[in-house]
Amino acid sequence: MAPQVFELTPIGRVESPLTDPASAPKQGEGAPDAWLDFEPWVLEGLEGIRAGDEVIVVTWLHRARRDVLRVHPRGDASRRPQGVFGTRSPHRPNPIGLHRVEIASMDGSRVRVRNLEAVDGTPIVDVKPVLSSDISER
Amino acid sequence: MAPQVFELTPIGRVESPLTDPASAPKQGEGAPDAWLDFEPWVLEGLEGIRAGDEVIVVTWLHRARRDVLRVHPRGDASRRPQGVFGTRSPHRPNPIGLHRVEIASMDGSRVRVRNLEAVDGTPIVDVKPVLSSDISER
Repeated sequence: MAPQVFELTPIGRVESPLTDPASAPKQGEGAPDAWLDFEPWVLEGLEGIRAGDEVIVVTWLHRARRDVLRVHPRGDASRRPQGVFGTRSPHRPNPIGLHRVEIASMDGSRVRVRNLEAVDGTPIVDVKPVLSSDISER
Repeated sequence: MAPQVFELTPIGRVESPLTDPASAPKQGEGAPDAWLDFEPWVLEGLEGIRAGDEVIVVTWLHRARRDVLRVHPRGDASRRPQGVFGTRSPHRPNPIGLHRVEIASMDGSRVRVRNLEAVDGTPIVDVKPVLSSDISER
């Protein structure tokens, strides 16, 4: 069987003051507000989302490497390399990013969010609500 | 600018007793144990993951529709349609699935997980650890 691939289509882009992946904050460690700028053809899919909602923004980490299977945790060369699937490194076979953010405001195709560590220009591929089963302690 | 697409490569498949998407449990609502069967070329990326770890399995919901932007919440026709990005419907422009599971055991390329609602044969595209910032109440 030939290897199958699946095609992701960007539904928007991140607009952020962050431009350098190397100096961007790590996940959940304090990041600036940013805009999500959506394509006109997906706006219907945003109906019902409101300021104050918490969502998971799914991105394509377009500046990541795809040929990496082991990394030093948190980029710290003194730490023993570990499989990428046990880390949040952007470098991985399919560089999908997950970012939990709060919606600050909505203005047509532009959605302001708090605390997003993705760099400017990062393609957005999906948005999902945060479920209680995602966040409950187990 | 021509529309750009990104190619996802499956890194494995779900093996599950669930075969019918219509009767599969909804997210976080009780699902069977399942196996994740990984491709040999990605096994190095699993190093460091252990039984008891909680991870997010990222899948490609291959049986979903991609031309849907509004759905009845929870498939209930009596409820008012809502934008897909405010729901966890599998039907959406990029049908990416997020599944928080606990690793039950590991056996080479096969990883047993608890409580996965994806159907048999669902392609896996990424695995990530659950971070405290993912699950903290805000």
